[in-house]
This record gives sequence, C-alpha cells and structure tokens, in this order.
Amino acid sequence: MSYILISNDDGYDAPGLRAMIDCVARMGLRVVAVAPDGPRSAQSSAITVGRALHIRRLPDYNGAEMYAVDGTPVDCVKLAVDRFGRPDFVFGGINHGPNDGNSVVYSGTMGVVIEGCMLGIPSVGFSHISHSWDTDFTPYKPLVERIAAAVVAQGLPEGVCLNVNMPEGGEVKGAVTVRAAKGYWVEEFDEYDTADGGKEYKLTGRFHNLEPDNDETDKYWLERGYASIVPVRPDMSAVDAICAISERILNNRQ
Amino acid sequence: MSYILISNDDGYDAPGLRAMIDCVARMGLRVVAVAPDGPRSAQSSAITVGRALHIRRLPDYNGAEMYAVDGTPVDCVKLAVDRFGRPDFVFGGINHGPNDGNSVVYSGTMGVVIEGCMLGIPSVGFSHISHSWDTDFTPYKPLVERIAAAVVAQGLPEGVCLNVNMPEGGEVKGAVTVRAAKGYWVEEFDEYDTADGGKEYKLTGRFHNLEPDNDETDKYWLERGYASIVPVRPDMSAVDAICAISERILNNRQ
Repeated sequence: MSYILISNDDGYDAPGLRAMIDCVARMGLRVVAVAPDGPRSAQSSAITVGRALHIRRLPDYNGAEMYAVDGTPVDCVKLAVDRFGRPDFVFGGINHGPNDGNSVVYSGTMGVVIEGCMLGIPSVGFSHISHSWDTDFTPYKPLVERIAAAVVAQGLPEGVCLNVNMPEGGEVKGAVTVRAAKGYWVEEFDEYDTADGGKEYKLTGRFHNLEPDNDETDKYWLERGYASIVPVRPDMSAVDAICAISERILNNRQ
Repeated sequence: MSYILISNDDGYDAPGLRAMIDCVARMGLRVVAVAPDGPRSAQSSAITVGRALHIRRLPDYNGAEMYAVDGTPVDCVKLAVDRFGRPDFVFGGINHGPNDGNSVVYSGTMGVVIEGCMLGIPSVGFSHISHSWDTDFTPYKPLVERIAAAVVAQGLPEGVCLNVNMPEGGEVKGAVTVRAAKGYWVEEFDEYDTADGGKEYKLTGRFHNLEPDNDETDKYWLERGYASIVPVRPDMSAVDAICAISERILNNRQ
C-alpha cells in the first residue's frame, strides 16, 4: 500500500514532526512517521551496525501512524522500508534548526532525505532556521503544503532531492530555488577542565560564509526573509573531474 | 607547522591506520594520526553535539604522533584542527572494508575525507575491499604511496577529494579513475525474538548494483582486480537542476 514516510533527527516528540504531518494529512494518502526515540541531530547518514534496533508503536497523530526507533534517522528509513514496504514519498522535518550552507552534510534530517533519494523515492527535507521547540509553524505551513503537494503530483528528477529552509520572522516573503552557500565551520570547541586535571572539548562554532553577497545561494535569501529550495544530488561522484584527476594522479590520458 | 593528518573509522588500533602511516612516513612531513578510540564504521559525517570530547596521546608509531578521541571520525578532524592547526593534507584509512558504490555516503572514513575537503584541504580516502584485520597491505602500499605523493606534490582541484578503493587478491592490476556505481542496499534486516516476546532487527543487506557491466564505474574495475579512484565533490547542490525544480515546484521561470 502506497504511503508517505516522515522522519526527522529531532525525535518523534518534536513539534516540527507533527507540523510536517499536518501539512500532508489532507492528501488522502496513508502517512507513516518513523522517527528516532530521542534527539539525533548531526547524525548525517550514520547507520547502526553491530547491535539490533527496536521499533515501538505510538498513538496515532492527525491520522498518521507513529513509530519510534532506538537508532539513527537513516536507521528509521531503512527499518520503515523493511517493515512497511517502499514508501512513495519521503519527507524529513520540519527540522528545528537550519540545514543551509554545508549543514546538509551533517544533518540527520537530510540523511533521511538522502536515503529516500538513493532508493529512487521523491524526497524533501524541510528545516526552519530556529532551534526553538516553541516555533509557531502556522505561517510556514502553506509553503510546506505547496511543495509537498507539487512533489506528490509531479515527482522529482531522478537522483535529485530537495533541501528546503525557512526563514525566521513568522513570515515567508517568497521562495527561491538556489544552491547551497559555500563555506566552512570555524572556532569549533569550548575547552573545559576535567576533575582529574585534564581537558575536555565541546563542539560549538559558526559557519563562515564565503559568499555572503551572492544571490545564487540559500543563505543570501534566508537572511532576507525568503525560503530557499536547494536541489541536492546525493551521488557525489565528480564526473567532470575524472579526466583531470586521471592525468594528475596517474599520468594517464583516458 | 605543516602536517599530514590521518584518521579513519576503524579506530586508532586498526592495522589499516598503521599501513596508512607507513605510506607517508618517508615524505619528510610531520604526521599526526587522530583516530576514534574504537570502531566507528558507518558513522558518515556524524558529529558529537551535547557532550564533551576527550583526546588522549598514545605512543608514536613509525614517526607519527598518535591520538585517540572518544567521538566520531569527523570529530577527530575537527578536534585535530582545533588542537594542532589546519593540516596541509588529510588521508583517511586504510579502511578495512570497501567504500565503493554509494558506501561513500555512509562511511566514517570518507566522512574524514569530506571534512578535510570542505576545509579546502587536499584529502584522500583509501579503502581495501576486505573487512579482515589480517589483510596484508604490503602489495597495496606502492599504489597508496604513489597517490599520496602525487597529491602532496600537486594538490587536488578545488572542492574535490578522492575515494580510492583497492581490490582483493593481494595484487593490483592497475588503477582507473571512474565514478561510483549507481545502486542501493536491499534485504537489510535480520529479525530476532526478544526475551519479552517482542522483535528486534539487525542491519545486514547487500548492495544492488544497477550497472554491473558498466566500465565507467568503480565496482566494475574492483571486481576485475583494479583499484578505483573516484573524484568526490562534497557540495551536493545540483546546480544543473535549479531551473527544472523552480519551474516544477514553484511554477517560476528563473
């Protein structure tokens, strides 16, 4: 039976997951949410090897079947496929916190979406720029509904999923299709003394945007009150670099 | 002070890590290995948030400084940058097990390499197709040394890192620069009964190669005794799909 699979990396009890369900609840499709049993932010495409996973049924929410898994976000997708069959659509989110710039690489919510895409399933991740669980998603739901409905109606190009980010401010001025801003993370650890005289290090840091004024990037528009839609291709093979690498590394001309 | 950073996802005591160090030990550069304190396979680009990390100095190996971190492979890179400064080169491996096909998405060793690449550092991951810790890396070292030396001498194109896989058989017929084989994982869970009458699920499965006869792919050559070199671009933005997505999802023409 065809169905929409929903997951995230904030866990089954995140308000953003319920907001995501609300946005697809009236499509007339079966909706199944399989989410981690606690926060799994920044788990990327990690999977659990070497121990068994458990899946637990929860009370339905707004017509959706709800399940919790003691694993990573991608574990949730793999276990859902195994238990309930191949979903027709995979939606991740709504994530509490941004997944713009290169955060797509670290995000567990985008891990869910990338997993769906690699299975050939039209898949979209939705993220809101605030980490607060008190975010009122009401003003963002029309855009989420519109994108989800378009994907359900028309699918996505083969090998491509979407990474949608929504701005702060309780309003969306519009939506633009762009690429991720290039940059990297800096100043990433706070240092603490430990009881035994040693040190420990806690990850923090900020994204250094290499192109803050470039209107082809997601961050540019998010900072100006727009939602960004970035098409993401999980196959990272740099086909255009094959000849150059072959010459440079192997002294070959292929 | 400039240095080569080495890490992996099999942990600091993996023979493959020592083999990797052996391959760069005679270059005249400082070598620092910062690796997880235990196995962290399939950790992808996961990072540790919400708890502190600890780094522990170990005895040197073959001229290399050795450290263990109680975190993910990418944590090791981030903490190395924080503690020792920006490395000039990042090498991952030698991984015990293949990272061909779409395994690059799940691999913690390739997580290390992708992290280095996103910091603008020439980075290469090396993997051997066998998971055995008894693998004799001797016949593979000339190729690893050659690729590492070429990258140290000439760098890599901006935004591109390398994913090198080596075949079984104790011999390498040659090396080819190709793209990753397209495919997905199937039959992924073994089901067990639990003591309380429930079920649990352990991840297994195999890669279904969609193009086994395509000589443009890594798996084709690995199965025939060759090493594969796949250029990898961590920026997954599908720039070529922006117009199509804008029209399809937003009814815009950009």
